[in-house]
Parts: sequence; C-alpha cells; structure tokens
Amino acid sequence: MTRAHLYTFTRSEELMDRARKVIPSGIYGHQSPTMLTFGAYPKFLARGQGCRIWDVDGNEYIDFMCSYGPIVLGHHHPKVEEAAMAQHAQADCQNFPSEKWVELAELLVSITPAADWAVFAKNGSDVTSWALAVARAYTGRDKVIMAQGAYHGTHPWCVPIPTGIPAAERALVATFQYNDLESLKRVVAENKGQVAAIIVNAFRHDLLHDEEMPAPGFLEGVRALCDQEGIVLVIDDVRAGFRLNLGGSWEPYGVRPDLICYCKAIANGYPLAAGLGREELRRMAESVFFTGSYWTAAVPMAASIATINTLREEDGIEHMRRMGQRFRDGMDQQARSLGIEITQSGPPAIPFLTFKKDAGFERSRLFCGEAARRGVFLHPHHNWFLMTAHTERDIDQALGATDEAFKVVKEQFGG
Amino acid sequence: MTRAHLYTFTRSEELMDRARKVIPSGIYGHQSPTMLTFGAYPKFLARGQGCRIWDVDGNEYIDFMCSYGPIVLGHHHPKVEEAAMAQHAQADCQNFPSEKWVELAELLVSITPAADWAVFAKNGSDVTSWALAVARAYTGRDKVIMAQGAYHGTHPWCVPIPTGIPAAERALVATFQYNDLESLKRVVAENKGQVAAIIVNAFRHDLLHDEEMPAPGFLEGVRALCDQEGIVLVIDDVRAGFRLNLGGSWEPYGVRPDLICYCKAIANGYPLAAGLGREELRRMAESVFFTGSYWTAAVPMAASIATINTLREEDGIEHMRRMGQRFRDGMDQQARSLGIEITQSGPPAIPFLTFKKDAGFERSRLFCGEAARRGVFLHPHHNWFLMTAHTERDIDQALGATDEAFKVVKEQFGG
Repeated sequence: MTRAHLYTFTRSEELMDRARKVIPSGIYGHQSPTMLTFGAYPKFLARGQGCRIWDVDGNEYIDFMCSYGPIVLGHHHPKVEEAAMAQHAQADCQNFPSEKWVELAELLVSITPAADWAVFAKNGSDVTSWALAVARAYTGRDKVIMAQGAYHGTHPWCVPIPTGIPAAERALVATFQYNDLESLKRVVAENKGQVAAIIVNAFRHDLLHDEEMPAPGFLEGVRALCDQEGIVLVIDDVRAGFRLNLGGSWEPYGVRPDLICYCKAIANGYPLAAGLGREELRRMAESVFFTGSYWTAAVPMAASIATINTLREEDGIEHMRRMGQRFRDGMDQQARSLGIEITQSGPPAIPFLTFKKDAGFERSRLFCGEAARRGVFLHPHHNWFLMTAHTERDIDQALGATDEAFKVVKEQFGG
Repeated sequence: MTRAHLYTFTRSEELMDRARKVIPSGIYGHQSPTMLTFGAYPKFLARGQGCRIWDVDGNEYIDFMCSYGPIVLGHHHPKVEEAAMAQHAQADCQNFPSEKWVELAELLVSITPAADWAVFAKNGSDVTSWALAVARAYTGRDKVIMAQGAYHGTHPWCVPIPTGIPAAERALVATFQYNDLESLKRVVAENKGQVAAIIVNAFRHDLLHDEEMPAPGFLEGVRALCDQEGIVLVIDDVRAGFRLNLGGSWEPYGVRPDLICYCKAIANGYPLAAGLGREELRRMAESVFFTGSYWTAAVPMAASIATINTLREEDGIEHMRRMGQRFRDGMDQQARSLGIEITQSGPPAIPFLTFKKDAGFERSRLFCGEAARRGVFLHPHHNWFLMTAHTERDIDQALGATDEAFKVVKEQFGG
C-alpha cells in the first residue's frame, strides 16, 4: 500500500488565520472547514482546469464536488469561456438586459416540456422563495409543504439552522417524509384548502443521509394530489438540474411540475438561477415583484447558453452517468474485496457513499480524508458531483486513491 | 432648438416581442419598461464603455443610471477588468474561497471604522435579511423597524409590492417616518423590549420621492435610541455605499451603525454583496447560517478590491461629487432661465430631479424621455447615479440635452 502524498496546507492555514480575524468563522456556510475531515483538506483554492483543482499550497485534486454543483462541464471549459468572454467584451451588468436574456429564456423553454416561460435570478434561494410567492398569489393560500430535512436554501422559511429566524416566519411551513405519499396526504388533509405549494427536491439528497430516488408511484401520487387539491407543485431542481435530464429531472418519470427551480449547473459556475413555469401561472408570475441588482447581467446568460448547448451536443448527461457508474462500480468492488460494507446511493452523476455501522460518519470522514490526501476531492457528509470533464482515466486514477483510502478504513475500523 | 436624434428601437421591440412570449412581462422588476417614459427608451442594451452605453439598435447614451448603481468607475474600467481577468484565468467559483476572500475582508475592515469583520453574498436582499437574523439572534427579539416606503430588497419582510407574500411574514415589521425621530420613538415604545433591529437607508431615496439627507440630529437620535433600548442599528448602504464615503455613508455624520449592508457599487458591476459588523456581533454572525452557491466566487472579489483601491487612489468620491454638482448647477440654471420650477435632491453623486406641480410625474417622464432621445440616460421615477468616468465634457454634453428637454417641457406644460 502506497503512502499518501505529503500534502501540506501551510498557506491555507496562514490564510485561515487571517480570515478568522476579519470574517465570522473564517469561512462559513456550506464551505465551512467544519464540514470536512479535520486536517485532511485545504481551506483555500487557487486554480481549476477541467476536472483538476489546485489549492493555495499547490496540491492537486480530481474534483468530485464541482464547486458544490455549478461546474458541470469542467473548470474553464473552452466553449463556455469563449461565449462568456465574447459577451464580456460587450457588456455584462447594464440598465437593461441584453439579447442573451431572450435567447436563454427561449432555449430553456424549448428544452423543457413542463415550462412555457422563465425568470432569472442569482441564487437557488431566490427562486425557491419566488416559487412560493407565485404559488401563493395563484392559489390565494398561505401554507407550503416541504419534505422533512430537505434543503431548499437559506431563506427564513427553509434555512436548515434557523438561528435568528422568528418562529412566525416558519409557521406556514409543514413537513412530510420524502417518498412517503401517505405522510404527505396526511399533512395536506390537516391543512385542507390552505396549501399553496408542495416543494420537492428532484430526488432526496439531504445532508448526512443516503440519497433516495423517487419511489415508484411517489411523484405520480404527488402530482395527482396537487391536481385534486389545487396545489402548485414545485420541483427544487437546484442541485440536480442539468445533470440528470436536460428537460428537467422528473421528465424520465413522466411527471411535470408547475414550477421548476434551477441554479448551480445552469451556467458552469457563472452566477445564475432560473425559475420556469407553466402557462397557467404566467399572469401571477407577472404580478410577483422579483428583482436584484445583477439579475439581468449578460455574461452568466451567455455562459448558460453555451453550457446547455455543450451538454446537449456532447451528450454530457450520458457521459456523467457512465463516469459516475464506473466510479461506483469500482468502489463497490474495492469495498467488497476488503469486506467493507458500504451504501452507494443516488444517481451516478450525483452520487453519495456511506459506510454501514457508521452513524457518526467516522468511517466516511477517514475515507474521504484519505482520498483527499491522495488527490481526490470527495465529501464525507454531502453528496458528490460528476462533471463531463471526468474521463475514464480520471475515474481510474481516482479509484487508485479510493482503494488505498478503503484500506486505511479497514485498518482502523475493521470490516 | 435642435431636433432630437431620430432614435429608433426596432431591434429592442423585436426582442421585446420575443421576450414577452417566454418571460413574464418580457422584462420584470426594476428594469421593467413600465418604469420609464413610453416610447423614449430602448429595452435592451448591447455595450458599455466608460460612461457611454449603446442599445441594441446602436443608439448611444451617456449613462446616468450606472446599471442602477453597480457601475461606479465606468463600464469596462481597465483596472477592474485587469484584476478580474487575472483572477478569472486562475479560478472563480470553487469548492473553497480563494485568497481574495481574505484580502477583500481585510480591505473592507481596514477602511470601515464601524466594522471589525465582513461576510459576503450576492444580492442586497441577501445581506439586509441576514442583518435582521444576526440582530434577532443577538437580541433574542423578533421585531424590526424600517422607514415607511424605504427599499431594502425583495425578500418577504420588505418587498415593496407584496403579491404572494403572507401577511404573517410581514407582521414582525413596524414602520416609522424617515427623519422623524419622534415617530421612531413612538414605534419603539409601542414595541418596548421586542425590537431586534432598526434598519435605515443611508439617506432617504424612495422611489417617486425627493431624496432626503439625514436631518440634523436624526442619526444621532437613532443611535442613542438603539443604545438605550438594546436595539441593533443596521445601515442599508446598498444604494449609497462607495459613492458618498469609502468608510460607510454615515461616517461624515460621526454615527456608527452596528451592521452595514453593501452591494451595487462594491465591485463595479461584478455580482457581490457584503455585510459588515462590530466585534460584539461576531459570535452571533458565526451562528447564523448564511450561504449560497456562488458566494465565495473569486472574480467579483478581485474586481471589488480593484474598485475600492481605484476609488481611493483617484479620489473617485470627490470626483463624482464635483461632476454631480456640475450637472445639478447646470440644470438648475437651465430650469431657472426657463421659469420651470424643479427640485434637485440628495447627494450630488446620487441625485434626483423632480418638477413642482407634477404629482403624476408627467413632466418628469417627458423631460427624461426627451433627454433619452438626445442620448442622455436619466430616470423619471428613480434616483440617478454618477460614476467616476463622467468628465466635465460628458456633463456639459449631457447639459446640452437637458437644456433641450427642459424646453420641450416648457412648450408642453408651461412654467
């Protein structure tokens, strides 16, 4: 068994010391170092190219987090950069939108069977909260239902750690269990005639939890319930969008939501979010006030058009699925050969791996930390992401690192 | 009197026809065409350079809206572009922040006497809502007070048109009259012991209203009231920040807020917002969950550092004040010579002009529309912005257009 690279994080730690002086926690939110294996990861990154990233100490990694989703084609993808820089030479943030505003909306509507129109913003939270407003305006009702433990952003109604959020701002949100249609029916019945929207992630991808694809009949049941009760069905496709299906993540199930929330992979790292909707909701979408300083900026829209077209032309969805499956199959075999019990869950392009008998995620943290020391950037608590820049050779190189990481887990924890 | 240029908007209207099919209202929010003089403005822009912008039909304008604030040095400012592109060549949106994360926080803290730390986000709304959460966590109280008619963003608690927003989500917000300390004291007394935060714009810049600078004693009174009642004082400096004073817009008054909200001019058009705070609030800021997909992206931070340094090195604040004053003086003289009564209000760098006896803003719309037809981009309902790229020659050229626009107002409306 080879030794891990001697990755050191001198510069990262220097920067972190400075950061702690002038930024609460130094780094906060989903990129907080407390989310990761202590001592095994850098804290600051310097560069990205394709599926490789380099930290501020010069250590190299194969990136399986994709900036927590946005990078879907690879860092500095030439087609995206060409489109973005061509637009940048003209204009970005102006008094009015650019032509890209129209072109991107047309493109999104053309590839999305469930949608007749689109709006744009900057964050996933912008569009999930907007979807509730549209649904409330449309139905004249106030309550919304989301799955227990689901992530829909950081606005008061849904932020997972509600410090500083008044209880009153969450009182209109009821919860059900993902994939448990009966639990949803109960909550709807308890709030009969009061529910404006049911918002559901494309599939279950809660932190610290095995992923769950929609169970057979679940989405159809949600759709039927919404139709029956006059409830607006919102898919939060922020994390999954543009990695599973270009027409929306529920298209393969034949279930069409009323509103779709996109962000992350929509523009390969350029800041953009989008809300898409059905014709029936257009008038209410017109009446909801929705705006932000940079929301019509042209460069992210040019990048988005190039990203979507490249995904389509190169069948990027299928490539990510294949590479994700290759990674999964490889790790499955490695774990089995060592007698380590793991669970790999979710779609191959947005995979997650947990260890059995690992309620505290100690095995996960050791495994991912050992992978990081060997130049593979995984996450012990949060799902991973594939990008089209991953080649078979990258996957196989990554598997070399995971094999050694599994062996360290075996050494320390046994089977 | 010269004829207006024959600006035509063929391409703008073609794009608008397409936009209406795939986007609610075609263009929504603060850039909606309904905000401007019918028929006198383009709807889509193509290019910007310095203080000039060009629409999709090739018409040129001197830009006095600055993308509604963000452009503070000029479109495509060379120093900002150099810094942004150098960073872009390395990385933008990654799994962790870049060194710029630390450098920008250090810079902001170093120039801001009221602040000991900073956080970053994407929109003004992100940081105004975050400020309330920090204040609520710190005080253990739920209520917040804002000025009637003030703009603090589009989140439920403050969105100016609350379509789709449940009354319950606004029930914790009480209002007072800007510059009326007694009205504020009354509201605080009515909510004794329950008020977490008072949030106040740097100065009064409500839509469709003459601007008001803080009245003598007002800010000092707000500060004293907050100290007395244990309330967190938040300045919403989103619109004014980096145009009036680099240390925060209240520094000239000697009044220091507890939390500062920045956005817009912070990065010359690159998407960035920041929240700054006092040491006492750091621990609670650490406990408030605050994050977004693109919030640690490096390019806007590199742009922000270059923007702030350029403003400082070139004394951009004083230049904008002088150019704004020159514009104001010129229009004042023009109006007086025609016997037209106008009100020019607010700071010269963020000016606004209204006509007396013009409750419906008909004169304003005619005036701004005639200026637009002559290549000067003003706004009839919303304050304007100066940028450092405005030269005396630009101001004088703009005054040539406003002189003619005043004459049209005189012709149609009399004095």
